[in-house]
Amino acid sequence: MTSSLRLGIAGLGTVGIGVVKIVRSQAALLAARTGRQIEIVAVSARDATKDRGVNLSRYDWEDDPVALARRDDVDVFVELMGGSDGAARDATHAALDAGKDVVTANKALLALHGQALAEQAEAAGRVIRFEAAVAGGIPVIKALSEGLAGNEITRVMGVMNGTCNYILTRMEHSGLPYADVFQEASDLGYLEADPTLDVGGIDASHKLALLSAISFGTRPDFDGIEIEGIERVSIDDIRAAADMGYRIKLLGVAQRTGRGLEQRMQPCLVPEASALGQLEGGTNMVVLEGDSVEQIVLRGPGAGMGPTASAVMGDVCDIARGFRMPVFGQPATSLEASVPARAVLPAPYYLRMRLADKPGALAKIATILGNSGVSIDRMRQYGHSDSAAPVLIVTHKTTRVALDEALTAMQATDVMRSAPVALRIEAV
Amino acid sequence: MTSSLRLGIAGLGTVGIGVVKIVRSQAALLAARTGRQIEIVAVSARDATKDRGVNLSRYDWEDDPVALARRDDVDVFVELMGGSDGAARDATHAALDAGKDVVTANKALLALHGQALAEQAEAAGRVIRFEAAVAGGIPVIKALSEGLAGNEITRVMGVMNGTCNYILTRMEHSGLPYADVFQEASDLGYLEADPTLDVGGIDASHKLALLSAISFGTRPDFDGIEIEGIERVSIDDIRAAADMGYRIKLLGVAQRTGRGLEQRMQPCLVPEASALGQLEGGTNMVVLEGDSVEQIVLRGPGAGMGPTASAVMGDVCDIARGFRMPVFGQPATSLEASVPARAVLPAPYYLRMRLADKPGALAKIATILGNSGVSIDRMRQYGHSDSAAPVLIVTHKTTRVALDEALTAMQATDVMRSAPVALRIEAV
Repeated sequence: MTSSLRLGIAGLGTVGIGVVKIVRSQAALLAARTGRQIEIVAVSARDATKDRGVNLSRYDWEDDPVALARRDDVDVFVELMGGSDGAARDATHAALDAGKDVVTANKALLALHGQALAEQAEAAGRVIRFEAAVAGGIPVIKALSEGLAGNEITRVMGVMNGTCNYILTRMEHSGLPYADVFQEASDLGYLEADPTLDVGGIDASHKLALLSAISFGTRPDFDGIEIEGIERVSIDDIRAAADMGYRIKLLGVAQRTGRGLEQRMQPCLVPEASALGQLEGGTNMVVLEGDSVEQIVLRGPGAGMGPTASAVMGDVCDIARGFRMPVFGQPATSLEASVPARAVLPAPYYLRMRLADKPGALAKIATILGNSGVSIDRMRQYGHSDSAAPVLIVTHKTTRVALDEALTAMQATDVMRSAPVALRIEAV
Repeated sequence: MTSSLRLGIAGLGTVGIGVVKIVRSQAALLAARTGRQIEIVAVSARDATKDRGVNLSRYDWEDDPVALARRDDVDVFVELMGGSDGAARDATHAALDAGKDVVTANKALLALHGQALAEQAEAAGRVIRFEAAVAGGIPVIKALSEGLAGNEITRVMGVMNGTCNYILTRMEHSGLPYADVFQEASDLGYLEADPTLDVGGIDASHKLALLSAISFGTRPDFDGIEIEGIERVSIDDIRAAADMGYRIKLLGVAQRTGRGLEQRMQPCLVPEASALGQLEGGTNMVVLEGDSVEQIVLRGPGAGMGPTASAVMGDVCDIARGFRMPVFGQPATSLEASVPARAVLPAPYYLRMRLADKPGALAKIATILGNSGVSIDRMRQYGHSDSAAPVLIVTHKTTRVALDEALTAMQATDVMRSAPVALRIEAV
C-alpha cells in the first residue's frame, strides 16, 4: 500500500464534521477501495473551543485556514468554509500555491472565481474537485464530466436548491401563501443566513454556472445567468398551474443556442407527471441530455451532513486513487468565454390574468396575442364573485420577445384588472 | 498532448457501430476532454462483407478477435461481442495477457467469469471497465464505485431490463395478457435471440451480480441470485396491484443480511407513486442506498446504440485520462466469497386468490394467516359472477418462511379455487 493521503479540513460545520465522521468510521473500507489510508492531520475553524460532538483533539488545530492550506503534511486541502471571497478564496489559492490538491463544496467560490483557480491549479499540476458543490449527494459532476465524456451535451437542467423546492411543494400541499411558508422554513433553519441566496435563486445559479462550464466547455459565467427567484410565486399560480396539469419549480436550464449560451434560473412550469414535476421537498434532481445518451435523470438529497460529506469523500477517494483531470473537464485555458444569450429559445408559456367582466374582454386579449404571433393552446376562464374574471392561458411555443410585446399591449388595454403573470413551461 | 489512445473493437453490432460513430464525430471533443487523441486502429466481427452503414475501410480488419486483442498497436480492447464464453472470453483473456486494458459491455462474461478476469487484469496492472454492461447509458458503475466510494452501501436495486419493463407497462396500458405482449415485443425485435435471457430475468441478474460485487466487496455471485422471471405475471395481477396502489416491476435487489448476501430478481410490487413505480417502457432505473448518501436514484435509457456507446466511451475516456482502479472497486483478491442468503429479509406481500363462494371461506384463510404469524394490512373481496370470489390481501411485513407455511396450509383447505399468487412488496 502506498503512503497515506493526508487531509487538512478547513471548516467544521455540518459538512466538515460529516467528513470527519466518514474518515473515522469507514477507514478500512476507504483503504480497501483506494489502496491508501486516508487520514486527517489538521483542521481549522473559527472557534477552537466549540463542542462539535466529535473529538478533534487528535488533529492539529490551525486558527488560520491559510496556514492549514500550506502545511507540509497536508496532501489535500478540503475547503468547507464557504463564501466566495475572503478566507475560503485565500486559503484555496494558498493550497494550490503550496502544491496541494483541493476538494471543495464551495459553489460560490468556483462560480465566481473558478476560472482563475482552475488555471492556477492546472498550471501547478493540481486538481480541484467539487462534487459536493452541486446537488449534494448526487454524483452529478462525475456523471457529467466523466460518465458522459463521450457526449456533446445538449441541455442540462435541474432543481438544485432544496429550500426553494421545499417552499414550493409546501405551499402546494398546505395552501399557504409564500410569506407564511418562507417564515416556516426560516423557523425550521432551512434558510441560509442571507435567505436571498436561496429564494433569490443565487445558490442554485452558482451550481448551474458550474454545470454549464463542464457541459459546454465555457468559462463559468455566473453573471450570464438570467436569474429570477421564487419570491413572487403566488399560491394562486401554484393552484392554477396544478389545474392545468403542471407544477412550478425553480428550474435552472443551460443550453447552447445559435446566438450563444442561454442560462436561466427561474420558476418554470413542468408537467406534473414528469420526474421533475414529481420532485418533493428538499430533494434535488438534475437532468443531463447528450447527443448519444439521450437523457439521464439523477435524484438525491441536495444537502445535509451525510449526503454532502459523501460527495466530498467521493472526491477524496478519486484523488487517493490517482484520478487527475482538469477542473471543468477540459483544460481551463481551452475554455471559451461564454457568449450569454437571453430569451433565444422559444417555449410555451403559462399566463394568468384577471380580466374585466365585460363583453369582449377575452376577445381583446386573444386578438393581442394573435397580433404578436402568440397562439393559444389552452384557455380557461373561471367563475368569480367579484368584477374580475380569472383567466388562464397556455400558449404554443413562442419567443419571449413576442410574448413581452403581447403583455405590454395587454396592459395598455382597459380590460386588465391586474398585471398578468407569465411563466415559462419547460419541456422535460 | 501525449500519444493517442488506440482502440481495437471486437463486435460491430449496434453498440460497436455506435462507438465508431462517436470516435469519429466527436474526435475534437474527446481530445479536449482527455488530452489525447482517441483512434480506432482495428476492428473485428463475424462478417467482413456486411454493410454496416459506416465506412470501416480505414481500420484494419481482423477475422479473429483474439488476434485483434493481441495486436501490438492496440492499447484498449473494446469487447462488444457478447456471450459469456467462447470468443468473447478467449479474446478478453488474450487482451489482458497481451497487456491491454479492456472496456466491455458484456454483463454475462463478467457476472460468470468476472472474478478470474479481474484477478488476471489486476495482476497484470490492467483495468477492465464495464459501464455499458449495466443499465445502458446510466453511469451507474461510476456512481457506485467512485461517487459513493465513501459509503457503506446498504441496498442496491433496480429495474435493469428494458424489455421486461416494456412488457409489463404495455400489459398494464393495453390490458393484453402476457403472451400477446410477449409476441408484440418479439415482432418489434425487442427480445434477445434467447428470450429467456430477458423475460426469465437472466440478463438483469447478470447486471445485479455486478452491482452486488461492487456494493458489498464480494465476488460476483450470479448463482447466488434467486431469480424469477416475468413469464407468470398475469394481467389480473397487474390490474389488482394497480387497484391497491401498486405497480409490478421486475426488480433486482441486493442487500446484506445477518446471514449473508441476499440477491433477488423477481416481479415485485412497488408503490405507483414511487420513482420505480413511475418507470415506463424500456427505461432503466437504479436505486443506490448508502449509510451517508441516503438514497440516489438514477434513470436513463437501458439500451440502444447511442446510450450504450456513450457508456463505452465514458470508460474509454477514463482510460485515456489515466484513471485506473480495481475492476470491482477494490482488489479482486480482497473480495470475499459471497454467502448467499435467501428469504431472510421480511417484507409485506401481496396475495391474490380465488375462494369458494361459501360462508366461512375468508375466515378460514384469515385464520391460517394468523396461525402462521402473518398479519393482514388490507383485504379486498370483489364482486363476481362465477362460483369463486376474487380476494386480494396485502400483509404486514412477514418472513417468506411464515408466508410459505400459510400458503401451503391454504392450499390444503377446501376453499381455494386456484393456486394463490404471492408477490413481494418492496419498500422503495
